[in-house]
Amino acid sequence: LDYQHVQVPFEITLWIMLASLAKIGFHLYNKLPSVVPESCLLIFVGLIMGGIIYGLNDRSPPVMDSDIFFLYLLPPIVLDAGYFMPSRPFFENIGTILLYAVVGTIWNVFGIGFSLYGICQVRAFRLQDVSLLHNLLFGSLIAAVDPVAVLAVFEEIHVNEKLHILVFGESLLNDAVTVVLYKLFRSFCEMPTIKSVDVFAGVGKFFVVGLGGVLVGLSFGFTAAFTTRFTKDIRVIEPLFVFLYSYLSYLTAEMFHLSGIVAIIACAMGMKRYVEANISLKSHTTVKYFMKMWSSVSDTLIFIFLGVSTIGENHEWNWPYICFTVIFCLVWRALGVLVLTFFVNRFHVNTITSKDQFIIAYGGLRGAICFSLVFLLPEFHRKKLFIAATTVVILFTVFVQGMTIRPLVDLLAVKRKRESAPTVGEQIHIRFLDHLLAGIEDISGHWGQYYWKDKLEYFNSKYLQKILLREYDQPKSSIVLLYEKLERKHAIELAEAGQLGHGPAHPSLLGPAFLCSSNDRTVRTDQKLEDTQNPDILDNMQEILARNLYRIRRTGPAYNRHTLPGESEPSEHAKEILILRHKSL
Amino acid sequence: LDYQHVQVPFEITLWIMLASLAKIGFHLYNKLPSVVPESCLLIFVGLIMGGIIYGLNDRSPPVMDSDIFFLYLLPPIVLDAGYFMPSRPFFENIGTILLYAVVGTIWNVFGIGFSLYGICQVRAFRLQDVSLLHNLLFGSLIAAVDPVAVLAVFEEIHVNEKLHILVFGESLLNDAVTVVLYKLFRSFCEMPTIKSVDVFAGVGKFFVVGLGGVLVGLSFGFTAAFTTRFTKDIRVIEPLFVFLYSYLSYLTAEMFHLSGIVAIIACAMGMKRYVEANISLKSHTTVKYFMKMWSSVSDTLIFIFLGVSTIGENHEWNWPYICFTVIFCLVWRALGVLVLTFFVNRFHVNTITSKDQFIIAYGGLRGAICFSLVFLLPEFHRKKLFIAATTVVILFTVFVQGMTIRPLVDLLAVKRKRESAPTVGEQIHIRFLDHLLAGIEDISGHWGQYYWKDKLEYFNSKYLQKILLREYDQPKSSIVLLYEKLERKHAIELAEAGQLGHGPAHPSLLGPAFLCSSNDRTVRTDQKLEDTQNPDILDNMQEILARNLYRIRRTGPAYNRHTLPGESEPSEHAKEILILRHKSL
Repeated sequence: LDYQHVQVPFEITLWIMLASLAKIGFHLYNKLPSVVPESCLLIFVGLIMGGIIYGLNDRSPPVMDSDIFFLYLLPPIVLDAGYFMPSRPFFENIGTILLYAVVGTIWNVFGIGFSLYGICQVRAFRLQDVSLLHNLLFGSLIAAVDPVAVLAVFEEIHVNEKLHILVFGESLLNDAVTVVLYKLFRSFCEMPTIKSVDVFAGVGKFFVVGLGGVLVGLSFGFTAAFTTRFTKDIRVIEPLFVFLYSYLSYLTAEMFHLSGIVAIIACAMGMKRYVEANISLKSHTTVKYFMKMWSSVSDTLIFIFLGVSTIGENHEWNWPYICFTVIFCLVWRALGVLVLTFFVNRFHVNTITSKDQFIIAYGGLRGAICFSLVFLLPEFHRKKLFIAATTVVILFTVFVQGMTIRPLVDLLAVKRKRESAPTVGEQIHIRFLDHLLAGIEDISGHWGQYYWKDKLEYFNSKYLQKILLREYDQPKSSIVLLYEKLERKHAIELAEAGQLGHGPAHPSLLGPAFLCSSNDRTVRTDQKLEDTQNPDILDNMQEILARNLYRIRRTGPAYNRHTLPGESEPSEHAKEILILRHKSL
Repeated sequence: LDYQHVQVPFEITLWIMLASLAKIGFHLYNKLPSVVPESCLLIFVGLIMGGIIYGLNDRSPPVMDSDIFFLYLLPPIVLDAGYFMPSRPFFENIGTILLYAVVGTIWNVFGIGFSLYGICQVRAFRLQDVSLLHNLLFGSLIAAVDPVAVLAVFEEIHVNEKLHILVFGESLLNDAVTVVLYKLFRSFCEMPTIKSVDVFAGVGKFFVVGLGGVLVGLSFGFTAAFTTRFTKDIRVIEPLFVFLYSYLSYLTAEMFHLSGIVAIIACAMGMKRYVEANISLKSHTTVKYFMKMWSSVSDTLIFIFLGVSTIGENHEWNWPYICFTVIFCLVWRALGVLVLTFFVNRFHVNTITSKDQFIIAYGGLRGAICFSLVFLLPEFHRKKLFIAATTVVILFTVFVQGMTIRPLVDLLAVKRKRESAPTVGEQIHIRFLDHLLAGIEDISGHWGQYYWKDKLEYFNSKYLQKILLREYDQPKSSIVLLYEKLERKHAIELAEAGQLGHGPAHPSLLGPAFLCSSNDRTVRTDQKLEDTQNPDILDNMQEILARNLYRIRRTGPAYNRHTLPGESEPSEHAKEILILRHKSL
């Protein structure tokens, strides 16, 4: 037995396996996930695992490594979030989101930090040795809303899109603020004296970290799009580039101390439309599927590790400090949302209702980012107290707030997400209004969002598309593209409806319209296929196959590293099919 | 700048990126890959990279780590090979393959080992200090044909399927023999005296290592199939299980000193048919695509690293030893193939022609496995000589043999792979003959391959399918399944043919048969769609869309971690489509 040799990959694989099996387990019983959010269940599994490890080894189970979290577990989730980000509501509310993310987070950091310092002055609590700077440092890590936790809860409660994007966008974009404040306070803690220059440098850093992240992300995104122009002959490695470039953007941003989360989101949003146009349909399915799979596993692992890391002896249970932390987190967030929304509502026609405000405040869940940051703190005598407080805040927000938010949404009758997408008519009108508003803004000299959007679209179609897209001979109208996409989907569904025909469940549906063809012969044979079990029609089988199997002559059983069987030259096949159809008609 | 923090993932990503870009680069010029195999080009890129690193640092570039090779780079390639292995020719020739893999490899090991020992006795070469045991150890690592190198060359020359599977199968299955002999000789080198018991134990190990690998692989494969029974509600992590279980089988086999390659092949071949039946179509596309992508990248990295590692100062250039190694590798392989094929041909009607024998002997390429094994040798004073000899053998086989094998195949007019798959008639006759031969074998009491195949099929449909498949209510005849699969493919192609209609290239093909429907209205509108550029028909667009866009009402713009948009309830949609079609007829 040579365990050491394979230890690293073996244990990683086993952890991922455990996470996946836990996920399957929850979904086997449909009632459980509808009451308790999956994140709670996963933390619970982690707690049990941690308890077992603690019981067997008699020492604290290993804590989630911060490097592993930031370098390997977080990027897939953020990439997924950025790639599937609904861009219209995001950009429509970008101002509000930035206000919450930047001003709101700063408000929370200083609010929590100063009020905790006040608590530390109460002699009875025996906390006088915690300095103001340490409290502010703690505030900077505990204030930020966590995108992983927010996603895990909000994607299950289906609130209206604006509310969702406000909370979710804030949780993503506050990373830049958190990074700056956390690093600022940490370096202040190590400095003997703090000059006012340092404070101003810190303020300037916000812009560098945030905008730098956006720049890094966009440049990698456009490079990715440009690279996929040249993958026509080697389709099989196309999905790789999407992952490689976005990961590189994250790592590069981290390397320069910029915001990696902002970078990867900018990269994903920047490359999406160009990459989608360049790569093949199958590659795109793979990209989407793998992104979902990866983020799903990462997310599961994070919550399980959170649970495992909670068990152990690295906590200092000073209950007054911990309880006041929880209370201040709730209070300052609620106050911040109220004040900021007051200003936002003064400048918008479409105001944020008080119900929505409540959900925004209540949805400020904390998660694994705080947890990783608190372990990255430099060693000092009260670190264990901070770890305990962070753990309690996370567990409180995920369990109590996460489990009660769904009943609250029901109780308050918060506006839900509309079940259906806008109709074609609505879409046409929305586009018409966009152009109209862009024109009005242009005339009135007010450079608002419609003006900029119009300019961006012009720049995109004039320059970017020509550089980044492979086939840019004739720009198809988006309505034609949509039609093509729907026809393709339709065709697949029809084929699968044909497949349904073999089940006994819906015999009434399988009339002569079966399989989209009114060609008599085909219909007759299709109907025969439905009752394949009858032995008397098996002799007709060969005839059917001989007529329909134009395709099998073409698939070779070759093994090839770079292509999947039957992938080559779809246009060739399509031509042949059309010729055959011609003849048969 | 904080490079150290992100160094590991950053450098890994950069290497993969380099590999992918190199691949794209070769495919941009179509002429190059048709003359020089990709493996040679990649080694060449590696040599240049190595030269640059050597020139800049003035010391040997880092050598490919054997652990990285065996734990991370090799498994994806072998998994891909096993999953896409054409099972019929493999099992038809399993006897011959095993003969080549086991007896042939032993023959080569001892042949090369003893004759190199003979060379060492020549006083002029100054090699008397290399013992017989060391020569045998060297023989055991240099004798084995490498699956990665063989695949890279043979998938480009398209020889007939039997010849391909003989060389490829041998290269995969000889792993068990190589593992045993290499470890045996290595432990003999460290023992003071060798007892005859040890030699017998070594012989017994062959069976343990090989059969143990098969057992480990099959048990993981069946577990994987069983797991995918329960993933119906959480489709997005289905592909994960295929990768996790096969990787676990490899690691487990390595842990117990069994053959990891044999295990992962058994796992892939065992799970394939059950997993394919259980998982969704999209998951399956993802599995196939990702496997190809991964193996393609691994393979590229291996050849680049091979090139990089060649540059440097860890070689001892004793030319007589090196030249004789190359000659003996060629001679002993040719002799082995001749002798073994003589026996094989006596027992088979379908003999291996002398041309095929030549290609089998000539196709015995060495690659990264030898290279990794030679670096794993314990330190002794002639290790650098062995490294030099291995490097030269690999470069000679990959460059000289790899580049000349295609012209030789042309020159000898070796039977090529048939371009088309067997017709339905042929397939039916093949199946009929299988049943017939199984019956004859049963009657005559000869338990040959047909008898066992029949028994296996019976066992499969009686027990395995019931346990491992999700929907096992009514076993569909394979001909019906094939029909369904073809209809689905057909539907997609038709939709894509509709897409072709917008290109100006083949207007003659786009008659009234367009889009598989003889419904007059649809045809009329489809024809209109062809010339979208005409502005006068744009007003008809809305009508078309209103009639065809039954689907868009259903897609919600939701963001969800676990599902892709538009994935839910295909049966619902299918029903609706059928009802709509009913009405329109």
